[in-house]
Amino acid sequence: MSRLRLDELASYLGALLRGDPAKEVDHVATLITADEMALSFLSNRKYAHQLASSHAGVVILTQADSECWCGNALIVKNPYLTYAKAAALLHPRTLQPQGIHQTAVVDSSAQLASGVVVAANVTIGARVCIGENTVIGAGCVVDDGVVIGQMCRLGANVTILHDCVLGDRVVVESGSVIGSEGFGWAKDGVAWVKIPQVGRVVIGNDVSIGANVCIDRGAIDDTMIEDGVKLDNLIQIAHNVRIGAHTAMAAHGAIAGSTRVGARCTIAGKVGIAGHLTIVDDVHITAMTMISHDLHQAGIYSGAVPQDHYASWRRNAARFRQLDAMAKRLRALEKQQERAFEDAQALIND
Amino acid sequence: MSRLRLDELASYLGALLRGDPAKEVDHVATLITADEMALSFLSNRKYAHQLASSHAGVVILTQADSECWCGNALIVKNPYLTYAKAAALLHPRTLQPQGIHQTAVVDSSAQLASGVVVAANVTIGARVCIGENTVIGAGCVVDDGVVIGQMCRLGANVTILHDCVLGDRVVVESGSVIGSEGFGWAKDGVAWVKIPQVGRVVIGNDVSIGANVCIDRGAIDDTMIEDGVKLDNLIQIAHNVRIGAHTAMAAHGAIAGSTRVGARCTIAGKVGIAGHLTIVDDVHITAMTMISHDLHQAGIYSGAVPQDHYASWRRNAARFRQLDAMAKRLRALEKQQERAFEDAQALIND
Amino acid sequence: MSRLRLDELASYLGALLRGDPAKEVDHVATLITADEMALSFLSNRKYAHQLASSHAGVVILTQADSECWCGNALIVKNPYLTYAKAAALLHPRTLQPQGIHQTAVVDSSAQLASGVVVAANVTIGARVCIGENTVIGAGCVVDDGVVIGQMCRLGANVTILHDCVLGDRVVVESGSVIGSEGFGWAKDGVAWVKIPQVGRVVIGNDVSIGANVCIDRGAIDDTMIEDGVKLDNLIQIAHNVRIGAHTAMAAHGAIAGSTRVGARCTIAGKVGIAGHLTIVDDVHITAMTMISHDLHQAGIYSGAVPQDHYASWRRNAARFRQLDAMAKRLRALEKQQERAFEDAQALIND
Repeated sequence: MSRLRLDELASYLGALLRGDPAKEVDHVATLITADEMALSFLSNRKYAHQLASSHAGVVILTQADSECWCGNALIVKNPYLTYAKAAALLHPRTLQPQGIHQTAVVDSSAQLASGVVVAANVTIGARVCIGENTVIGAGCVVDDGVVIGQMCRLGANVTILHDCVLGDRVVVESGSVIGSEGFGWAKDGVAWVKIPQVGRVVIGNDVSIGANVCIDRGAIDDTMIEDGVKLDNLIQIAHNVRIGAHTAMAAHGAIAGSTRVGARCTIAGKVGIAGHLTIVDDVHITAMTMISHDLHQAGIYSGAVPQDHYASWRRNAARFRQLDAMAKRLRALEKQQERAFEDAQALIND
Repeated sequence: MSRLRLDELASYLGALLRGDPAKEVDHVATLITADEMALSFLSNRKYAHQLASSHAGVVILTQADSECWCGNALIVKNPYLTYAKAAALLHPRTLQPQGIHQTAVVDSSAQLASGVVVAANVTIGARVCIGENTVIGAGCVVDDGVVIGQMCRLGANVTILHDCVLGDRVVVESGSVIGSEGFGWAKDGVAWVKIPQVGRVVIGNDVSIGANVCIDRGAIDDTMIEDGVKLDNLIQIAHNVRIGAHTAMAAHGAIAGSTRVGARCTIAGKVGIAGHLTIVDDVHITAMTMISHDLHQAGIYSGAVPQDHYASWRRNAARFRQLDAMAKRLRALEKQQERAFEDAQALIND
Repeated sequence: MSRLRLDELASYLGALLRGDPAKEVDHVATLITADEMALSFLSNRKYAHQLASSHAGVVILTQADSECWCGNALIVKNPYLTYAKAAALLHPRTLQPQGIHQTAVVDSSAQLASGVVVAANVTIGARVCIGENTVIGAGCVVDDGVVIGQMCRLGANVTILHDCVLGDRVVVESGSVIGSEGFGWAKDGVAWVKIPQVGRVVIGNDVSIGANVCIDRGAIDDTMIEDGVKLDNLIQIAHNVRIGAHTAMAAHGAIAGSTRVGARCTIAGKVGIAGHLTIVDDVHITAMTMISHDLHQAGIYSGAVPQDHYASWRRNAARFRQLDAMAKRLRALEKQQERAFEDAQALIND
């Protein structure tokens, strides 16, 4: 933790300071748990009532909300974004160990730029190229021919397989596997014959990849993750998928082979997207939806069953299997009604 | 395997022995595969017919079921629980390697209590504190400042990130990641800016965590897993989730950020729970359900589509998109019917 | 990459060559990206229009399709299968490092056959037995008593736990865990008591397992994966599951405890199969389906909600909870109609 004066913070964050410029804070906290030394924030009005009893040393909030708070305030347009910057300032990453740990196995043909940190028990293969100030966590395996940019950070026990490419400022959390062989099989009678997976995974700049994620290498061409994409934990990206810039995807999502997802999409948790689809830019998909067709229009897409008490779900779910029959019976009734009406009309007209 | 006499077993398990006290068994088996040296059990009456042909050396069962079995019997109230204890006795864990393996990298500031086992290729960071008789499997990475209690067991290739806390008797199966950075982002134009994740993961006593699980560290406060929680494989626990004591969750479950799950809940496979929800104690959720709202009442909740033959599913699923229209058409028919009935009544009353 | 003449390729692949026998190719590419030195293929008529503008050095296709292509052709019955073989020929696996890396920790009681490769930072336990020409990737942990056949390949950071058995030519991609302890618990008041998991995982020949997969060891008997099974990434196989020969399962699938899946099944992404079920041979399950009952008949099974625009999904999903009530109201209307019809008939007959 760093200790900072409010006037320093205001100047760095481009915020309007209301209160004591010499007051210091040294950590972040929620409005509820904050003490005198804490910086807190209000970005959602739902929590404005928490201001009344907060002991925060300073609060980041909007002009409008600042009227509900009489303590020190950093007034900005986007409190959440400003909080992100303030928190990074107050909680700098702990110093990493320096240099190449003596237990790391680094092939003699690998090129490591200045400032590269390689932790204990790491394996780095032949012809690997790693940019300045990149940190490779303990137990990572970076296979032959991999290229990693500057200021990247690999967590622990990450695996990057041969010839994959990571841009600058890429983060890969622990346990993830980049460049495993895609699931490609040709039938030979009852048996499956493997399709060799000769493509790579190519990842742009400022991409963030969660823990225990899998991104398969391409079958022929490359699997592509464009700049600024953010992937949460336990996600599956199949071979030859292409994800557009700044798309974000929550945990347990899966995209099947050769699908192209546009830029600036948001994909909620446990979404499944079938293979060989095209999804345009600015699509938003809610949790647990199955996408089985192209999405040609920006917008929000959904497709899950809402929760219910077991007993009533059981009754309703059984009816799901009768839906088509119900629709036909409904149509039959409507036709009878129409005929009855026509008969009545005919009677009147007679 | 250990070899034990039935009278020793009965005394240890608090069971009533019927049969030969000097008879010995040395392993467990199902009723079908058991031989003379095997201990077996019957906890579900559905399998009572298997007693007739079983060759088990002894069977754990209830007084009521013991009448269907003329061999050696250990009679108890809860055969499954008693079986758990008997199996642990007959199949003690194989002896772990002792001490700290010479290839383990242990920071000089780490404190390892007596009896701690550290396997090969492990990395243990600065200020780590590990309690008595805890076993750290091969390839694990225990990051700076982590605290692990007594008699814990980490499988192989487990990652525990900085400053996380594990209680006593915690088990983490292989490949799991505890304390990865949560998925927190603020929008800055089209780009995402990372919210620093400054909280920890704090895990109580007697917690069991499956393989390739991810538990993210808190954004500000800590992610909390209370005593006795059991998590299966490939589960995602997002930042600032809190799971109450003795809740059990099956594989591929996911809980999004800041949700609080009560105590003694059971959550079946592939359940997704949205963020910022409150779920009370004693809630049971069936497989593949999406929980998108608070659950204020104990009980069973569900929400999935039942399996069907493809052809009929296809017809019915297409009707799902017409449900609201169908409901309105149904209401219109009912109104016509009511009007017709009122007209008829009026005619009669005239 | 290897460089091969078309006559050599035709002879190896059993294909009919049309064109220049001395022409050479050295890599594979799609019809669109192919250059003069590339071999490409057409297996799906949907892409036949790409032939017109392709620069491929040679194309694998059927007799029928060969009329749309005037360049060099390798004519076969099954172009995709033939492509698989050609790609393996043109892109042989890069030479692995030879022998046992000096940082690998191999127990003195382990038996490694000739040609076994053990990469850096690997841990191999007591009594392990590994067959000829098997390759163990960097960071893998092979626990005590494990048996691995010939010509297998473990990726990086794979964990195989004690006493598990892998057949010949088994591939396990990086990060996967074979033999973790199954999720078996007996209730003791509010707490859970662990059921010792004393079985193994037994894997047949020619099995392929993706990245970050979990296969739990059996509770009493073994978990069994039969010959030729193919599992994609992030799959969960619970204790005592048995999967029949040549069944293929896509990413994020899960099979709960003791379920038996037949041979030659295909299971799409994110399918969940409940425990203690029996699924016969030649069953095909579409994406995101929940299987909660036995499947006694070969065929295709489904059960998911189709995607929709959010606004209409929201309306329709709300109606799901009224389905049973709607069905009853529909029946009531039909009865009224029938009664009205009977009344009318009675009137006529009077």
